[in-house]
Amino acid sequence: MQTGDYSDFKTDLLDQVAELRAHIRSGTHTGTTSGKAQSLVQGNVVILPADWANDFLLFCQNNPVACPLIGVSQTGDPMLPGLGRDLDIRTDIPEYQIFRNGERAETATDIRDVWRNDFVTFVLGCSFSFEDALVRAGLSIRNVEQGQNVSMYRSNIATQSAGRFHGDMVVSMRPFKAADAIRAIQITTRLPKAHGAPVHIGDPALIGINDIHIPDFGDAVTIGRDEIPVFWACGVTPQVALENARPQIAITHVPGKMLLTERLNEELAVL
Amino acid sequence: MQTGDYSDFKTDLLDQVAELRAHIRSGTHTGTTSGKAQSLVQGNVVILPADWANDFLLFCQNNPVACPLIGVSQTGDPMLPGLGRDLDIRTDIPEYQIFRNGERAETATDIRDVWRNDFVTFVLGCSFSFEDALVRAGLSIRNVEQGQNVSMYRSNIATQSAGRFHGDMVVSMRPFKAADAIRAIQITTRLPKAHGAPVHIGDPALIGINDIHIPDFGDAVTIGRDEIPVFWACGVTPQVALENARPQIAITHVPGKMLLTERLNEELAVL
Repeated sequence: MQTGDYSDFKTDLLDQVAELRAHIRSGTHTGTTSGKAQSLVQGNVVILPADWANDFLLFCQNNPVACPLIGVSQTGDPMLPGLGRDLDIRTDIPEYQIFRNGERAETATDIRDVWRNDFVTFVLGCSFSFEDALVRAGLSIRNVEQGQNVSMYRSNIATQSAGRFHGDMVVSMRPFKAADAIRAIQITTRLPKAHGAPVHIGDPALIGINDIHIPDFGDAVTIGRDEIPVFWACGVTPQVALENARPQIAITHVPGKMLLTERLNEELAVL
Repeated sequence: MQTGDYSDFKTDLLDQVAELRAHIRSGTHTGTTSGKAQSLVQGNVVILPADWANDFLLFCQNNPVACPLIGVSQTGDPMLPGLGRDLDIRTDIPEYQIFRNGERAETATDIRDVWRNDFVTFVLGCSFSFEDALVRAGLSIRNVEQGQNVSMYRSNIATQSAGRFHGDMVVSMRPFKAADAIRAIQITTRLPKAHGAPVHIGDPALIGINDIHIPDFGDAVTIGRDEIPVFWACGVTPQVALENARPQIAITHVPGKMLLTERLNEELAVL
């Protein structure tokens, strides 16, 4: 909000996102979207051929905490009108990761040349929405404080498989003092479409994490002696399931370089 | 609910409570009220001379998590019509603790002979309401499982003093596996008038508890290696403040032997 006037609240945000999207589309913004257009929902993206789409849709249905679906495209249609007025999934992500037979192959800043008429796009809610809610509630998020990516780990919490998609849950971790951890549980409970409440608190070994200081994805952050690690289901979970399912081709965003939507985080809140 | 018919839900409960209250009033039930009329609110009780009432009212106002006020009587009036149709505070608690100059003096099962026309009764919400909600959500409460009183501790969390009332917060502790601890935080958040969300989770030393296995009040319970202790503000907190304030006379319930009201636990829920 730049004008100090609530009447312009969403208009101003949409102006911000339109400007940023133009830079992303033209390839002049290829970095993270963390901290950008903070009141708006950002999404994890998975693009698959149509013959893999039903299995993946069921995987999301079976694992709604790790894979909270907020949008699905029509087959072959690169537009996502439910998430933005002029949103073209082929150009509007800063950087794409292309998977071939389950392996991370090339990255790209534009996928118009690999787009297929049988592609289906899935958009999943993202922790940036709940981080925004935590910050607005006065909490300090360690990875944001330290200018780092959030710490993510392969847990031993099994997902419920669907067809060829299976694998353990990836979790993100943010340390808090106990009172803030309790507050964080309350705040994120409101946002089931952004992974909702934590899936674990406390001893990392209980969910198969042997060394909290060595994340599998993202960066390590400092954990105070008076802090408790708080673990949320993470939108990287479907990437692990993709690696296991090994479709001939699949495309995701590069972690931290998300799809900007035009929906407010507060629109995802259940209360 | 004994008839399997929702139309009789509250009627049946009121019949149960009326029968139990008759036994309490006649002195044939002097034990704990734990597990009795489970859907109905039970209350912590503090009775004070009117010249102490304003300070105590402010103490409750200042410390709403430890002292969630659900009823205050008129001066000298032993009835509490807001909490029950025929509720006489002089006879309707199984056992009373009389404090003299801040010391625990005698107990009694009836206080008609010590009642004064300047007494004011305060009723505070109680953890039995949230224990009921936890059990109905499928959680197992260790002290209930083990047939023990809940473990309570003097913490180093300061209350906000009011006049002569001051002291640290007493907390109750229930151990849970992490996922159940998270669920317990969500469930009890709905019940701010029954102490609401926990005030601490994890390391007891961080709130001044040196040995979790030696509670200051109530019984010790088993804590599993895969469990996290969860601490709630406790209705014994005002008794500590009473000990510090040292009024010439004050009367409370004996812990675990609570006032039965005719209000549903769900009436206390904010959601």
